Amino acid sequence: MRATLHTLEQTIRQRRSADPSTSYVAKLAARGRAKIAQKVGEEAVETVIAAMADDRAEIVGESADLIFHLMMLLADMDVPFDAVLDELDRREGVSGIAEKAARPKG
Amino acid sequence: MRATLHTLEQTIRQRRSADPSTSYVAKLAARGRAKIAQKVGEEAVETVIAAMADDRAEIVGESADLIFHLMMLLADMDVPFDAVLDELDRREGVSGIAEKAARPKG
Amino acid sequence: MRATLHTLEQTIRQRRSADPSTSYVAKLAARGRAKIAQKVGEEAVETVIAAMADDRAEIVGESADLIFHLMMLLADMDVPFDAVLDELDRREGVSGIAEKAARPKG
Amino acid sequence: MRATLHTLEQTIRQRRSADPSTSYVAKLAARGRAKIAQKVGEEAVETVIAAMADDRAEIVGESADLIFHLMMLLADMDVPFDAVLDELDRREGVSGIAEKAARPKG
Repeated sequence: MRATLHTLEQTIRQRRSADPSTSYVAKLAARGRAKIAQKVGEEAVETVIAAMADDRAEIVGESADLIFHLMMLLADMDVPFDAVLDELDRREGVSGIAEKAARPKG
Repeated sequence: MRATLHTLEQTIRQRRSADPSTSYVAKLAARGRAKIAQKVGEEAVETVIAAMADDRAEIVGESADLIFHLMMLLADMDVPFDAVLDELDRREGVSGIAEKAARPKG
Repeated sequence: MRATLHTLEQTIRQRRSADPSTSYVAKLAARGRAKIAQKVGEEAVETVIAAMADDRAEIVGESADLIFHLMMLLADMDVPFDAVLDELDRREGVSGIAEKAARPKG
Repeated sequence: MRATLHTLEQTIRQRRSADPSTSYVAKLAARGRAKIAQKVGEEAVETVIAAMADDRAEIVGESADLIFHLMMLLADMDVPFDAVLDELDRREGVSGIAEKAARPKG
């Protein structure tokens, strides 16, 4: 498994306290919760537009922007990304059972 | 490293062709690109609101919803999630260099 | 000039205290600020998607939904719609002057 | 009744063909449908955030921005704002009847 997202999470947490004049993370963190949340919303809008334009190169960049700023928002709320992965694992389990139960008998 | 997101990606790709009456993924995929994109936008709005309400339990659920539907949108465009991780890795490299260059000389 | 938006504003303010079981306005108002704000965000996403799909019938319905819910949000904050019109008038004045100043001399 | 929105609609339609170096409307119009739609989405996100922050001054400015860019999007699709007002009038009629029908007999 790739370490990209966990590395990203650690990097974001470290850079939050860096010098805002040299770090984008520190600069945005210093602007506060509302500005980070605004970025998440804006990147989602750009992701929607790239999808509607069927632009595969653009959707990669916008998805990366969206995930990056979501990570920043989670860090600002001191919520570990693992909590989100736990939730996705939990649903997958539930949903797997639900799909099994719903499966037509052979 | 955890396999959650790659497992999720595979599950989504498999279920897209499942019976829409038993699978949420198949049902949403059948409604088309615009409906999947709409869900990404809506989940982002709910994420923004959870963040502004400082609701840590809610942000976990909304972030999971947002990532799940982003994965569905990428699958609909046949873009592998690894392409997004590659982009995040690439930026981290560039940004690492940028932060180094910007670092005040000791 | 048409009275549509001022009539809508009055109707919304009256219905906020109506029976939630018979009035959509009363029902949504009872769910609180975050739910009204969520609807504004969601209708904006649908407006963006209708525009990208170049769907002229859809954009009319989504724009009506967006304005309706924006009116509900303003009422929830006890902000008169006239305050928004005042702001648009003020900008038009400023912008008219700015465009004049920027106009090439003849 | 105030003429603000109809004046705004006319101004936007006239300025679309102005010099992009002196007119914001002409500049944004020249960037195309996706950029105008993006602005509508972004201003909606800022409106949601102002509402959640309970900032009455901010909500006025963001609502004005949202309506302005929605007007630009309608102009780009050559949809008259009156079509949106017609839709709101039509719903008010329907909803008036619906509320009457749903009203408990005295």
